[in-house]
Amino acid sequence: MIDDFKDYLRLQTDLSEEDIQHICGLAIQRKIRRNEFLLREGEVCRHKIFIVKGMLRTFGMTPDGGEHILQFSTEENWTLDVESYDNQTPARCNISAVEPSEVLLWAKADFQNLLATLPQLKYFSELLIARNIYSSRQRMLTILSASPEEKYEDFVNYYPGLLSRLPLRMIAGYLGISLKTLNRVRHAQLVRH
Amino acid sequence: MIDDFKDYLRLQTDLSEEDIQHICGLAIQRKIRRNEFLLREGEVCRHKIFIVKGMLRTFGMTPDGGEHILQFSTEENWTLDVESYDNQTPARCNISAVEPSEVLLWAKADFQNLLATLPQLKYFSELLIARNIYSSRQRMLTILSASPEEKYEDFVNYYPGLLSRLPLRMIAGYLGISLKTLNRVRHAQLVRH
Repeated sequence: MIDDFKDYLRLQTDLSEEDIQHICGLAIQRKIRRNEFLLREGEVCRHKIFIVKGMLRTFGMTPDGGEHILQFSTEENWTLDVESYDNQTPARCNISAVEPSEVLLWAKADFQNLLATLPQLKYFSELLIARNIYSSRQRMLTILSASPEEKYEDFVNYYPGLLSRLPLRMIAGYLGISLKTLNRVRHAQLVRH
Repeated sequence: MIDDFKDYLRLQTDLSEEDIQHICGLAIQRKIRRNEFLLREGEVCRHKIFIVKGMLRTFGMTPDGGEHILQFSTEENWTLDVESYDNQTPARCNISAVEPSEVLLWAKADFQNLLATLPQLKYFSELLIARNIYSSRQRMLTILSASPEEKYEDFVNYYPGLLSRLPLRMIAGYLGISLKTLNRVRHAQLVRH
């Protein structure tokens, strides 16, 4: 599992082999089952998470058990509840596995230390944060503006690989539409094509 | 106008008077009229913007002229199209004045230089980015989950001062609901109270 992460760092950054070893030395390896939680609303987010294999979702829950999905995180992506992690306050989100997954975790103190001592990691981290901001803004515009049909089409185009890996109720929870509406949209598309 | 900004920096940061002078020396002062644009979709965002007085909005436009509002920026806030600014690519948003406003602008090269030479400014800037991420995530959860009634109530609670400053169509454009729905929600509340 750690070898995949090393390859990822070699490809994405200019970090030296020594630095990569150091980062990996502080990682905690975890295998998690489908639907296992890495973070529950109200807990404090104490780790940065890198997904080696599988998929996680970050979501809020309604009183009736509905899920509003902020993010799907697949292989070679990072996730966390950033506000809870930064300020060590109770999380407003849950993070749970969509599929059986393999993840690497870093305790906050360890990762802060890495960022403070490895400028290339800090630079890379800022780049990922920036990309995340760009896509959040874009998603916000889509959510505000698009019809259910456009939202679904957008999702299919942007995440072609995810469709077959996700139950429909989660796609609906990500698009902010009801399962009923999603089914209607999908049915209309099937008829059209 | 520049004095208000100096007070803001004194209050919010540990920057020295000399550094504050330096930052202010690079600022371009602009007064803009209601509905004047600081950035149009397709242009490159070349400046960081600080609002001294008034209010700007950042929004996407639909073919029929509808507005999907990403953000209202009032006094003592910063704004920009971050992706366009970072990468000098065409903006996907417009930035325009809701009210006659006074703003300070910094050319990207100047501001980059300030960030590189003033660690306190860099730290402050990262703090603002983080806060922005927190509130975006929260807003996304609200947009995904809440009913029009809850969205409106949320807006009223979160931005009590904005209600009287904004035309209803802009509030609707921010909440991602139609003007008709907004009117229904407001009418039902008036009847209830």
